Amino acid sequence: MEKYSVIGKRLPRLDSIGKVTGDTKYTDDMLLPGMLYGKILRSPYSHARIIKIDTAKAERLPGVRAVITGKDISDIPHGLLRIKGAPPFFRDKYAIAKEKVRYIGDEVAAVAAIDEDIAMDALDLIEVEYEVLPAVFDPIEALKPGAPKVHDKYAETEGNLSTSTNFSFGDIEKGFAESDLVLEDHFEMQFVCHTPLEPHSVIADFSHSGDVTLWLSTQVPFLDQVVVAETLEVPVSRVRVIKPPVGGGFGGKADTHSLFPIAALLSKKSGKPVKIIHTREEELVCTSRRHPVIVDHKTGVKKDGKIMAVESKFITDGGAYMSYGWASIYLHGILQFGPYYLDNYKYDGFRAYTNNPYSGAQRGHGGIQARFVVESMMDMIAEKLNLDPLEIRKKNGLKRGVITKNKFNIRSCGHVESIDKSTEEIGWKDKWKKLPDGKGVGIACNFYCSGGALSFFIDDYPSHSGVNISAEEDGAFTVFTGSSDVGQGSETTCAQIAAETLGVGIDKIKIVAADTGITPVDFGTYSSRVTMFAGNATKNAAIQMKQKLLETAAEALEAHAGDLEAREGKIYVKGSPDKGITVTDTIKTYFRVKKEPLTAHGHYNPPSDIADVVRFDTGEVNLTPAFSFGAYTTEVDVDKETGVVKILKIAAAHDCGFAINPMAVEGQIEGCVSMSLGQAFTEDFRVEQGCSMTNSLLDYKLPTAADMPPVKSIIVESIDTEGPFGAKESSEGPTTPTMPAIANAIYDAIGVRIKTMPITPEKVLRALEKKGGK
Amino acid sequence: MEKYSVIGKRLPRLDSIGKVTGDTKYTDDMLLPGMLYGKILRSPYSHARIIKIDTAKAERLPGVRAVITGKDISDIPHGLLRIKGAPPFFRDKYAIAKEKVRYIGDEVAAVAAIDEDIAMDALDLIEVEYEVLPAVFDPIEALKPGAPKVHDKYAETEGNLSTSTNFSFGDIEKGFAESDLVLEDHFEMQFVCHTPLEPHSVIADFSHSGDVTLWLSTQVPFLDQVVVAETLEVPVSRVRVIKPPVGGGFGGKADTHSLFPIAALLSKKSGKPVKIIHTREEELVCTSRRHPVIVDHKTGVKKDGKIMAVESKFITDGGAYMSYGWASIYLHGILQFGPYYLDNYKYDGFRAYTNNPYSGAQRGHGGIQARFVVESMMDMIAEKLNLDPLEIRKKNGLKRGVITKNKFNIRSCGHVESIDKSTEEIGWKDKWKKLPDGKGVGIACNFYCSGGALSFFIDDYPSHSGVNISAEEDGAFTVFTGSSDVGQGSETTCAQIAAETLGVGIDKIKIVAADTGITPVDFGTYSSRVTMFAGNATKNAAIQMKQKLLETAAEALEAHAGDLEAREGKIYVKGSPDKGITVTDTIKTYFRVKKEPLTAHGHYNPPSDIADVVRFDTGEVNLTPAFSFGAYTTEVDVDKETGVVKILKIAAAHDCGFAINPMAVEGQIEGCVSMSLGQAFTEDFRVEQGCSMTNSLLDYKLPTAADMPPVKSIIVESIDTEGPFGAKESSEGPTTPTMPAIANAIYDAIGVRIKTMPITPEKVLRALEKKGGK
Repeated sequence: MEKYSVIGKRLPRLDSIGKVTGDTKYTDDMLLPGMLYGKILRSPYSHARIIKIDTAKAERLPGVRAVITGKDISDIPHGLLRIKGAPPFFRDKYAIAKEKVRYIGDEVAAVAAIDEDIAMDALDLIEVEYEVLPAVFDPIEALKPGAPKVHDKYAETEGNLSTSTNFSFGDIEKGFAESDLVLEDHFEMQFVCHTPLEPHSVIADFSHSGDVTLWLSTQVPFLDQVVVAETLEVPVSRVRVIKPPVGGGFGGKADTHSLFPIAALLSKKSGKPVKIIHTREEELVCTSRRHPVIVDHKTGVKKDGKIMAVESKFITDGGAYMSYGWASIYLHGILQFGPYYLDNYKYDGFRAYTNNPYSGAQRGHGGIQARFVVESMMDMIAEKLNLDPLEIRKKNGLKRGVITKNKFNIRSCGHVESIDKSTEEIGWKDKWKKLPDGKGVGIACNFYCSGGALSFFIDDYPSHSGVNISAEEDGAFTVFTGSSDVGQGSETTCAQIAAETLGVGIDKIKIVAADTGITPVDFGTYSSRVTMFAGNATKNAAIQMKQKLLETAAEALEAHAGDLEAREGKIYVKGSPDKGITVTDTIKTYFRVKKEPLTAHGHYNPPSDIADVVRFDTGEVNLTPAFSFGAYTTEVDVDKETGVVKILKIAAAHDCGFAINPMAVEGQIEGCVSMSLGQAFTEDFRVEQGCSMTNSLLDYKLPTAADMPPVKSIIVESIDTEGPFGAKESSEGPTTPTMPAIANAIYDAIGVRIKTMPITPEKVLRALEKKGGK
Repeated sequence: MEKYSVIGKRLPRLDSIGKVTGDTKYTDDMLLPGMLYGKILRSPYSHARIIKIDTAKAERLPGVRAVITGKDISDIPHGLLRIKGAPPFFRDKYAIAKEKVRYIGDEVAAVAAIDEDIAMDALDLIEVEYEVLPAVFDPIEALKPGAPKVHDKYAETEGNLSTSTNFSFGDIEKGFAESDLVLEDHFEMQFVCHTPLEPHSVIADFSHSGDVTLWLSTQVPFLDQVVVAETLEVPVSRVRVIKPPVGGGFGGKADTHSLFPIAALLSKKSGKPVKIIHTREEELVCTSRRHPVIVDHKTGVKKDGKIMAVESKFITDGGAYMSYGWASIYLHGILQFGPYYLDNYKYDGFRAYTNNPYSGAQRGHGGIQARFVVESMMDMIAEKLNLDPLEIRKKNGLKRGVITKNKFNIRSCGHVESIDKSTEEIGWKDKWKKLPDGKGVGIACNFYCSGGALSFFIDDYPSHSGVNISAEEDGAFTVFTGSSDVGQGSETTCAQIAAETLGVGIDKIKIVAADTGITPVDFGTYSSRVTMFAGNATKNAAIQMKQKLLETAAEALEAHAGDLEAREGKIYVKGSPDKGITVTDTIKTYFRVKKEPLTAHGHYNPPSDIADVVRFDTGEVNLTPAFSFGAYTTEVDVDKETGVVKILKIAAAHDCGFAINPMAVEGQIEGCVSMSLGQAFTEDFRVEQGCSMTNSLLDYKLPTAADMPPVKSIIVESIDTEGPFGAKESSEGPTTPTMPAIANAIYDAIGVRIKTMPITPEKVLRALEKKGGK
């Protein structure tokens, strides 16, 4: 008999039928009686003071039901509100600008009308008088003294320093002094947009009794609840956020977006439900995006490849607002040195405010940029030292049981296995340095977290993730979870965990998810936390439920509960599956005997490996319960005439601990590859003088299915001791090795090293020219 | 300090703001994307065999998306499905007729189309070939041998006997033999419709994954869930019934109506959500209604008024189907003798199938007809014996602590207090027999149940009522209850009970109610059960929650939990309200210390006074946890020229045990009076040869606000030992005394006794003529 009945299986997702048949209703599909449509007036200037707004004409337009401006917004700026001791600059944005606009697209006013056309017409009738101010668009310029100040009060220090992180451990000077080779280089990466197929969407319904209900396309309903409550100045429990099916988030919908309180305020003022759906232009320009970075990197190594010291400096363009920037700048530094062991490290990260659209968190948050730099450097070092790029990676690699200098507890590690499996799949030993000119292979490794362990929110909330399970008389179980499936399939994962633990088929599990009025608190979908956090909470609830079932069955079977097992819908004495009682009959017996509902609870809080704070001086942080590892190899074919890089194959080995649903893990890996191919080749959110040049999907080029190379997903299972059934993340880490693996393969193919993204044909040709010219 | 902070207060209902502002959205207000509109083809014949149905033309009509007939319906007839050992004739109806139609209005086919007009056009295109059968419309004729048979297989015995109840206790012959007076008489009452302002309404959404969600205007979502599941042949847990706000039910929406599985089947066949809203004609004709009764009644009394024996025979017109008829016929008998003590009793109830529209349960179920008969008889006996009608009622009255012959346990009794307060209010002693000709006063008493104690459903369900409560970090509590507020205000009652128990204001309580996918099982709104059952479940959950709060606060206050009390949002050592901790801070402390969600559960099952069965031979039944009492007096002015009866005042004293919300109790009393004034004077669902003559609110005359006489509601609080804080029912019992009080007052005014309802001017004039003619 197989160890597991439901987990470890390639099961179709619970939401798949709804999605292929069109049953699934997204926020924009929904209609409420009397619903109005909202539109937002946005700043045409990068930086300006709002002198006067006259909404009278707009208000008089027939069909307009409400117009709001910054005056209608509470004086509490919104942001990530619940961070214990968070400095005030963590909250630097009003839902609608109050005094100044800071980028082209900043919210200036909003209108609710009986249809979208009238709402658009009304925007044209709002008269705004601006005093245009000098603006700054380059982060390095922005950090210089005398630069125009984007924020008068929120910057961390004087000037436009949005936030910075500077930490070190070990003895960096000694490390470099003892190195045989010290390599320095410079890297740059671009703005990249989340671009979910479903843009940010909201329906808000403010009732006359003071309660407001919102249907949000969001990753974090419980955080949005707080932001709306604070902006509207109502108690948190008066705000109910319901998360309908979400068509992708990728980190952008982890931001507590201004759109939501705006819709709620329009609803309050009009007395009607209000729907607002971002246009594609708004979705590209007026949401957060991945930080562009400018990196100076320095690594010292021994002759044998052992890393002695790393020093790096990241300067990022934060744009006009903070969003998750404080986390990004920290993660760039903290994720950089894994999957390798480091004794001596110094990191300086600076985030500048500019008058560009703002940056925030995006899938692979902090890891994308870090891995591109480090994995490029690893290959460059290996070449200088004439080492095998696989060996230098293995030699420096973290191992199970290691506790890093900054107290990362490595509970499981598939680093070496990933390298071995990926290289075997790509045929590394026959290809590396052996393919004809123009063809090459490259490798890069992965290191990521499985959710954030810091208890930022715990003071106000009961636990990181809570789950309730109730049993029904036909043998079904309802799992109430506040976790947010935004397309990644986490509800199916939780259902599999519940079914396996309870010993029933997945068809017996119903998920009720993400409704702040109904489901236990869960912080949401970000940092690849859902399988680890909601998965463990589900497992814990199911264990409690199972115990009640076993005790009930024990009486019926005249056995000890400890001697029983539950599997495939039946409870029986271990080893005697023929004699037993069905789970359904056990539930009915419970009801008959106890005459009370049968419910169970579970929750999950991550282990406190170290004190529950971020040490900004040493880089010590209780980052995550579990670290994922992996290694991607790729084979490329570079056309030296055109500069076009063709990806022949990607062999993506990812250590997800244990694959609850291998098909879902593969889907995540493939999605991550596609997304990072976008950043590698075509996705480039370009801003000129603060003005977006990429306002549609014609300009902002997402890879399509036709662009997808063959991807072989290889699941490495290191069985983590903290993850549910050993599982770790597989939704973000797999974004990170693609770009550096390609850059390394291009070097193997044509001997040029691309250190800035994206890799355009022009860039390849120019690099070839430069190399030839030398 | 007052004993209670939240209960016993005249608080506005939680739903009041939504209802007066129009925020409240009923089923018909809701729109789903792609929603279709359903219409039902109904039989034009009272009794006919369906030979052939051709739906081809209807299916070809552009805009039509689904047509269904009886062939699409499972072979499981629907009805109240979960009654342990229920005989097969309890389920005698298919959602759509399969072989025969049995009344004008019976469902023959149904259509879903893109709008209502097309659906109506499609009905015209369905060709049905009928073989018309002989029909029977009179219940007495129907019970005779040789009458046309309405059901071939479901009747209880041969012929058209739908169901009968025959029981007796004591020695009826001896009782009459020992009586000084034996009075016999005959009474008749008419069909009366529920006529909620919101007709039966449904939106059904059958997904391709096999799950179906229904938004129903219903009193019994958990029963509808089962009916839909059985009709559609899917597991019960695959059906989710959500109860939006309901615009009145009055017992009609306790029927598991064919409309709901029809909508679900149309949705399944069309692949789209389907909405069906009854027209007013359908609501009047094609739902259940109060049974018309033909009653022969015989009472034996001693000279002093002591009742020695009662024998009665009820024949009722059940119409074409059973609905709740098996309960009605039992309740007529069982509710008849209370509020009086009886040693010897014999009851024979017969329910006939006819080809009329069908009868079922209606507010005051079984009590309306019984009280009219008994309270009229009491006055007639008092007159014959020259006794005071108040004294004969007091003398025979039940008392707290009495256990009746058929084992009713009278835990509380406000019978005498109600008589005293009502008569004092009306000025009885100065008016009875003392008013000028044409004016008079009358009295009648009440006796009703507070929910059904029989555990019909308990084999499959955990408890009669379950409640979960969860605490939120801003000090709010969410109460999850499966109970169904259909306009009676029960959610406010439960909120008050929770708030009082938890020691917080009602503004801190949020109710999540009646969603089979979310809330614990509760059997619904019928038999006036909600305050007793859901109220006790809420109280029990709140007690558990409070205990957790007190234990948490005890640590913070360095006190013993037992020494603490919670009141008005604060927990403190008894007697020292100045030193304490707020409930909000206690919740936050719990979260911080325990790091887990804070939830509690409660449920309620009624006491098992006697074996959990209906004794059909002795009338013994574990009917209810608590009996309500009451007495109404009324003063009337009869115009002897026109026969018009004017009600000058009604003094309505009702023993509701304890008034959780006096304003809500008064609202119920006033509503009950209005409803029974309807039956007394104007409401008369007339059927001629099976064809309804009253198809609109022009013909079926509901009393309006302008018809309402002054009503003084008098709340009598007997503090029941089983009810939450002593509360009993107040939603049905108060319907029952109005009609007999009026009939008795008319007798006092003009000396004629009306024994059939309604009391039309013609009837009064004819009675006056007859009296004059004597």
